[in-house]
Amino acid sequence: MAQDSKILEELYTVIASRKGTDPDKSYTAKLFARGRGKIAQKFGEEAVETVVAALSEGKDELVGESADTLYHLLVLWADCGVEPAKVWAELARRTGTSGIDEKKSRAKK
Amino acid sequence: MAQDSKILEELYTVIASRKGTDPDKSYTAKLFARGRGKIAQKFGEEAVETVVAALSEGKDELVGESADTLYHLLVLWADCGVEPAKVWAELARRTGTSGIDEKKSRAKK
Amino acid sequence: MAQDSKILEELYTVIASRKGTDPDKSYTAKLFARGRGKIAQKFGEEAVETVVAALSEGKDELVGESADTLYHLLVLWADCGVEPAKVWAELARRTGTSGIDEKKSRAKK
Amino acid sequence: MAQDSKILEELYTVIASRKGTDPDKSYTAKLFARGRGKIAQKFGEEAVETVVAALSEGKDELVGESADTLYHLLVLWADCGVEPAKVWAELARRTGTSGIDEKKSRAKK
Repeated sequence: MAQDSKILEELYTVIASRKGTDPDKSYTAKLFARGRGKIAQKFGEEAVETVVAALSEGKDELVGESADTLYHLLVLWADCGVEPAKVWAELARRTGTSGIDEKKSRAKK
Repeated sequence: MAQDSKILEELYTVIASRKGTDPDKSYTAKLFARGRGKIAQKFGEEAVETVVAALSEGKDELVGESADTLYHLLVLWADCGVEPAKVWAELARRTGTSGIDEKKSRAKK
Repeated sequence: MAQDSKILEELYTVIASRKGTDPDKSYTAKLFARGRGKIAQKFGEEAVETVVAALSEGKDELVGESADTLYHLLVLWADCGVEPAKVWAELARRTGTSGIDEKKSRAKK
Repeated sequence: MAQDSKILEELYTVIASRKGTDPDKSYTAKLFARGRGKIAQKFGEEAVETVVAALSEGKDELVGESADTLYHLLVLWADCGVEPAKVWAELARRTGTSGIDEKKSRAKK
């Protein structure tokens, strides 16, 4: 397994390969079997744990909760048929020509 | 800018370089100036928007909200002094030898 | 307006009466017009702000964010056709005979 | 136990009385013993479950998750020393003279 951000792409490939496989064989297959609501819920809960870790725990907890959050985000992407490349392209687009500060001018909500 | 997951590392470098710079010059510098509570809040809100996009909007919205979530997660890491490499290593560790299903046996909570 | 918990029932009545009214006339009508995804999102965001207020701000902020959270929860109930009485009954049921500790034995997740 | 919103005040009284009691005797005492970070986390997680219930489950699930959210919000208030009356007053203040639409003009963020 890669020790850089490539781990996300590798992990996505593994995760996507679990779709439709025996829920008893892996946690990922079980998540897919429980459906999108449950996957989104787990992602949201891990994000809350990440918030709490950042505000009232230590760096190790933040690393651990961040890993959980990213893993469940990848499962959510796989369930929705979103390729990671689409998200990298979106991040590159926003931070590209005009720089990350382009975000500043985005209309939010 | 990279069009693969390397964008995350590039983006982190840009973000980290904004710490302590003029809040009027960039959205990122402004976030750092507002403090960790506000950064964690923005990350959490984007995560909620990601959940909602996955459950009641389309793929494009999920891509956009995921990008927002990742960007704010990187700012949170930078604010807490967490290097992305630590999170990649944690993801690799979990999915390594025993495979992603190692997660299955993790004690949660 | 009541100064005790009855405010929730009064507020729910006002909120429910705004369904289908002119979105330009009130924030509540505008929320209904934007749909359930947006209402759920606002509730979730206020909940995140409540978490952050509890962990890194003061009592006044927690009171303010809690009020925002409850208001948006009432809008969500109204949008879904859930009467507050159903939730009070559920809380009473759980805390009734066997006491609040009945919760202890509930299977979660 | 009351079958109206008074249940919230009754429940708060019970919850507050559990502070500092034996964590093995009740779920509430255990939550207090685990600290504010854990309490805030549980509240945030239940809020996420409420969002998911509203968007992809039924009314009964929304009622159940809402009850869980409110219970954990009351524990959070008790842990932070926030009396429910403060929140009712804030809700009444906002919806009072100028009506709920006063909210419309509030500066958010």
